[in-house]
Amino acid sequence: MTGMKERKMDRQGILRLIETLSQKKIDMAGKDFLLTWEKSRDEIEATFLVADIMRAMRENNISPKVWDSGIAVSNFRDNSTRTRFSFASACNLLGLYVQDLDEGKSQIAHGETVRETASMISFLSEAIGIRDDMYLGEGDKYQREVAKSLDEGVAAGVLPARPTIVNLQSDIDHPTQSMADFLHLVHYFGGLDKLKGKKIAMTWAYSPSYGKPLSVPQGIIGLASRFGMDISLAYPEGYDLIPDVVARSDKQAKASGGRLTVTHSMDEAFRDADIVYPKSWAPYDVMLKRVPLLHAGDQSGLKELEKTALANNARFKDWECTEQKMKLTRDGKALYMHCLPADITDVSCIAGEVAASVFDRYRNDTYREASYKPYIIAAMIVLGKFGGTAAILRHLVERNGIREQN
Amino acid sequence: MTGMKERKMDRQGILRLIETLSQKKIDMAGKDFLLTWEKSRDEIEATFLVADIMRAMRENNISPKVWDSGIAVSNFRDNSTRTRFSFASACNLLGLYVQDLDEGKSQIAHGETVRETASMISFLSEAIGIRDDMYLGEGDKYQREVAKSLDEGVAAGVLPARPTIVNLQSDIDHPTQSMADFLHLVHYFGGLDKLKGKKIAMTWAYSPSYGKPLSVPQGIIGLASRFGMDISLAYPEGYDLIPDVVARSDKQAKASGGRLTVTHSMDEAFRDADIVYPKSWAPYDVMLKRVPLLHAGDQSGLKELEKTALANNARFKDWECTEQKMKLTRDGKALYMHCLPADITDVSCIAGEVAASVFDRYRNDTYREASYKPYIIAAMIVLGKFGGTAAILRHLVERNGIREQN
Amino acid sequence: MTGMKERKMDRQGILRLIETLSQKKIDMAGKDFLLTWEKSRDEIEATFLVADIMRAMRENNISPKVWDSGIAVSNFRDNSTRTRFSFASACNLLGLYVQDLDEGKSQIAHGETVRETASMISFLSEAIGIRDDMYLGEGDKYQREVAKSLDEGVAAGVLPARPTIVNLQSDIDHPTQSMADFLHLVHYFGGLDKLKGKKIAMTWAYSPSYGKPLSVPQGIIGLASRFGMDISLAYPEGYDLIPDVVARSDKQAKASGGRLTVTHSMDEAFRDADIVYPKSWAPYDVMLKRVPLLHAGDQSGLKELEKTALANNARFKDWECTEQKMKLTRDGKALYMHCLPADITDVSCIAGEVAASVFDRYRNDTYREASYKPYIIAAMIVLGKFGGTAAILRHLVERNGIREQN
Repeated sequence: MTGMKERKMDRQGILRLIETLSQKKIDMAGKDFLLTWEKSRDEIEATFLVADIMRAMRENNISPKVWDSGIAVSNFRDNSTRTRFSFASACNLLGLYVQDLDEGKSQIAHGETVRETASMISFLSEAIGIRDDMYLGEGDKYQREVAKSLDEGVAAGVLPARPTIVNLQSDIDHPTQSMADFLHLVHYFGGLDKLKGKKIAMTWAYSPSYGKPLSVPQGIIGLASRFGMDISLAYPEGYDLIPDVVARSDKQAKASGGRLTVTHSMDEAFRDADIVYPKSWAPYDVMLKRVPLLHAGDQSGLKELEKTALANNARFKDWECTEQKMKLTRDGKALYMHCLPADITDVSCIAGEVAASVFDRYRNDTYREASYKPYIIAAMIVLGKFGGTAAILRHLVERNGIREQN
Repeated sequence: MTGMKERKMDRQGILRLIETLSQKKIDMAGKDFLLTWEKSRDEIEATFLVADIMRAMRENNISPKVWDSGIAVSNFRDNSTRTRFSFASACNLLGLYVQDLDEGKSQIAHGETVRETASMISFLSEAIGIRDDMYLGEGDKYQREVAKSLDEGVAAGVLPARPTIVNLQSDIDHPTQSMADFLHLVHYFGGLDKLKGKKIAMTWAYSPSYGKPLSVPQGIIGLASRFGMDISLAYPEGYDLIPDVVARSDKQAKASGGRLTVTHSMDEAFRDADIVYPKSWAPYDVMLKRVPLLHAGDQSGLKELEKTALANNARFKDWECTEQKMKLTRDGKALYMHCLPADITDVSCIAGEVAASVFDRYRNDTYREASYKPYIIAAMIVLGKFGGTAAILRHLVERNGIREQN
Repeated sequence: MTGMKERKMDRQGILRLIETLSQKKIDMAGKDFLLTWEKSRDEIEATFLVADIMRAMRENNISPKVWDSGIAVSNFRDNSTRTRFSFASACNLLGLYVQDLDEGKSQIAHGETVRETASMISFLSEAIGIRDDMYLGEGDKYQREVAKSLDEGVAAGVLPARPTIVNLQSDIDHPTQSMADFLHLVHYFGGLDKLKGKKIAMTWAYSPSYGKPLSVPQGIIGLASRFGMDISLAYPEGYDLIPDVVARSDKQAKASGGRLTVTHSMDEAFRDADIVYPKSWAPYDVMLKRVPLLHAGDQSGLKELEKTALANNARFKDWECTEQKMKLTRDGKALYMHCLPADITDVSCIAGEVAASVFDRYRNDTYREASYKPYIIAAMIVLGKFGGTAAILRHLVERNGIREQN
C-alpha cells in the first residue's frame, strides 16, 4: 500500500508543508466548517495540509498546542464512540478541554433556547462540535441557527470571541469523515492530483439494520466531485439521496473534469473502480417519515417503519461487497473503504455489507482511513479560528514544545 | 448601557487592580465560599477584583493558569448546563481538570459516606463545587459536612492540602449567581459605590412550573443588603423565603445604610426601581413538603403537590414583568435581570415571568450578566486556596504566559 | 503510626530514590500491568519507587507532567467513584486527558469489535485503564484481547505508539489496589524488607450484600506471597477463591521464604497477625453462576441467586472484625486494612465486616492506604510507556516545572 511506504516526515518537511500552506488563498477564519462544498478548492487543500502538518508535528514530538486553556464543546445527539474520541483527541492536541453538552435526544432546540444555550456555553469556548444526523431536514439547520446565535453574541459584545463550529455529521454532510477519507486517498495514491480520473464507486450495501444516515454517501460524492473523479453512485431503486446534493455533485463533477453516474447496479459501479465504498443507508423517504415519529417519540410507529424498511432492505441482500464483486474492480484491487463499523457477513451479522475475507484484507486500510479524523478536526478548528494559521504553525515548530518527555 | 462603553483594560490597568486587591483586608485562604454573608465587605470586593483581573488577563491573552495539573470536583444533584459550563470554564482557566462526582439523586449521603467520599475524591484535588438546591434544610448542611470531613482529613495528614469548596447553589444561597449578578451591576452602573441608594426590586413572577429553589432571591437580598441599596422584596402571600435569611438581610440593609421592604404588590416593588429581578420561586412550605417526598421517591405524592402548587401559582399570572410594569420603574428604564433561563410569555410558555418584548430588549444584558460567572467562580477558588492572591496574580501577569497562539 | 512519622522528602531525597530506581533491572516498557505475578520483584519495587518519587515531586511542588497533551482512556463496566478519581488523578498528574469509553454493561465485546474499538480509541492515546471484575473468567481475557489488538495495530503501522494497559480490576487480580495497599505497608512498617515474616490475615468477612469480586483477596495473597510473609487466608467453607491463584500464591510464598495457610477460622487467622484485611467476597461458584445470568440480563435469575447467596452469607455473621477479634492479633494492635468502602456494623448496615469502634480507630489508616493509588497508577503508566523512566524523572526534577503557583 502506498500509504505505508511513506517515510516519516522530518522538521524540514514540516516547514515545507507550512510554506505550501502559506500560499493557499483561503478565507476560513471566523467561519464554520459545515459543508465541504462551501469551501474553495484551496480551502480544502489547506485543511488537508494543516492536518498533515499536525500529524507530522506529533510524530516528531513537537507539541501542536495552540491553546494553554480553553473549552471545546461537544454536542452529540447520539452515542458515537468514534466521533467522541476523534473530537476529544483533536481538541486535546490543540490544548482545549472538552465539555459535553447533553441536550435531550428527542427534541431539537429552537429559537430562544438555541440563542441562549449557544451564548451560555461559549463565554470561554473556542470550538463547538455538533453531531446531529438523525433528523432529515433539521441537522444542518440547527448548526446554522447556533452559528447565527454566536454571530449575534459577538456583535453584541456578549462573547469575547467567536467559537468555530465543526459539523461532526449533519443530515446533509459529514465533512470530518469525507475529509479524513480523502486525506487517506491522497496518501494512498500519492497526491491529490492523482485522484483525477480515478473511478470511485460509492454504493449502497445491504445491512440488517435500517435508518443509517445519508450523510456519508452525500459527503463522499460532494467531495469526490471536486477532484475530477469518475464517480459511480449506485443504489437499489428507492434508496435515493437528497436530490439537491446529487445535483450539486453532478455539477461539481463536470466543473472539475470528472463525472457522476447514477446506476442501480452494484456490478456496474464496481467495474474497473479504483476505489469502492460500499455502505448502507436508509432510503430518503424513510428518513423523512422517521422525523415526525422521532419527535413524537412514537415507538410503535418507529417499530412499524423499521419493519417495513427492513423487509424492503432484505430484497437487496445481494448488494454485498464480495470477493466476486471485488474481482470486477481495476485489476481486482480497488481500495475498499468504510467509515466503520462495517456490517461484516458472518462476523457482525449473518448477511451484511461486506464479506469477511474482503474486510479482513482491508482492515488496516480502514483503520488508517479513520486515523486521519482527529487531525482533520484539529485542522478545521485552527483554520476556523485564526487568520494566519501558517504563521502560527511555523511558530509552534520553532517554539519546539515537547509533547512527550521520552 | 454603561457596561458596553467600558474600554478594554490593558496590562497597566490590570496591575492597578492587583494593587487595589493587595490593600484589601481578607482572610479567605483555607476557607470555603458558602454564603456571601459569611464574607466581609473587603472579601466581597476582593472577589470582584480577582474576577475582573482574571477576565482582563484573558482578554489580554495572558494565561491565568495557576495550576499545571490538579483536579476540580464537580458535585451536582441536577442537570445544570449553565453551572456545569461556568464551573468547567473557571477550572480550565486556572489549569484544573474537572472530574464529575455523580452521586444518586434521591439520597443525600451522611456521616461515614460523606467522610469517606470527601477524602477519596480529594487526594489530588484543589477545589470542589457543590450544587444541591432541591432539599430545603439540607443543601447547606451537606456542604458543611463535606467541609468538616476535609478539615479532618488535612488534620490527620491524610490529605496533602485542603480543597476549597465553592457553593454552586444550596438551599440557602447561590453566591456564584448573586456575585456574578452584582459584578454585572458594578460594571453597569460604574462602580460598587454607585449601588448605594439604588432601588432593586426582587420580585416573584409567575411561571408554569413549580419547585424552583429559593436560593436566587435569597442570594440577591443577602448580597444587595450589603451595599446600602433600597431593596423591595415582593411576592404573593404565601411565597415566603426562609425567614432567617430575610431577617439577616433586613439587619444588613440597615447596617449598610439601605433598607429592605417586603410587599405583596409587584407594582409597588417596580415603582421607581433602578433594577428589577422578576423571578419565580416555590413557596417555602411547598419546598418543605417536597423534601420527604423526594427522599421517598414518592412520585404520586410529588405529582399531587405539583398539582396543588401549580393551581396556586395560577392565581398570580398577573405577576409578569410586562411593558406596563416596566413603565413604573425609574424613567421606565430599570435594568432587567434574570439568572436564566427565563419563562418568556409566548416564547417558552403561554404565560410566564416576562413579556417577550421586555426580555428581547434586555437579552444581551442578561447574557452579559451570566458571563461574569466563570470569573467569579475562578476568583472564589483562588482566594479560597491561597493567602497571597495579589502576589500570585502579579506573578502571572509578569510571567506573561500566552493563552492563545494567535 | 510509622507512616505518619515520616519526614517530607526533599529534592535530594527524590534524586536518591531516582538513583535507586535506575539500578533496578526492569523490562516493563511496551508491556501492560495486568497481574502482579507477571512482574519481577525488581519491577514491583520499581513501581513502588516511581509512585513514591511522583508523590514526593508533587509534595515538593515539582510538576511530574510527562505529557503536554495526550489521551488516557478509561473503560469501566461499573460505577466506581474511587477508581475513576484515582485514574483521573494519575492521568492528570502526568498530563493526560481522560476520555471515558462507555460500552454496554451486559455484553463484553469480542473479536472484530474489540479489535476495531481498540484501534479507534488509540490513535492519540497513551494509556488505557480497564475495569471489568463482574464476569468470572472474562475480565482478564478481555484485557488481553485489547492488548493483542493494540499490538496488531502497532505492527500494521496503524497506531503511532502502543498505549499501555493498566488493569483497574479484573476477575483475577486488582493490582492497583494491592500495590497501593502494599506501598502503604512499606511506609507503615518502614521498608519492604520489614514485611518478611510478618503475618497477614486475609480473611473473608460478613456483608449484607453479595457478588463482591474475588480480585481483592486474590490480589493480596498474590502480592503478599512475593515478600516472604506469613499469609493466613481464612474463609467459611465454600467461599473459595480461584484455585489457580491460590496455588500460585502458595508456590510464591514458599519461594520467597514465607508461607500460605488456608483456614476456615477467622480467629486462627487473626491470632498474632501483624496485619488484618477482613473483607467480604462472593463464593467462587456463585460468581460462576452469575456470569450467564448477567449476560442474559436474567433479572429474576439474579434475584434468586442473590437470595440464596445472602441466606448462605447470613450463616457467617460472626465473621466480623470485632474488638474481641482484634485482641487476638499481635499485641492486639494489628494494622487493619480495607479497600473501602467497608460495611461497618451499626453505621452502614446492621451487621457488617467490621465493628464501628475498630474502623473508627483505623479510619485514617484506610484513607492513607487509598491515597497511594493515584501514584501507583501513574507509576504503572510511565513504566509501561518508557524504557528510561529514571532518566525521565531526573529530567523532570531538573526541569523543575512548578505545579502550583503559590
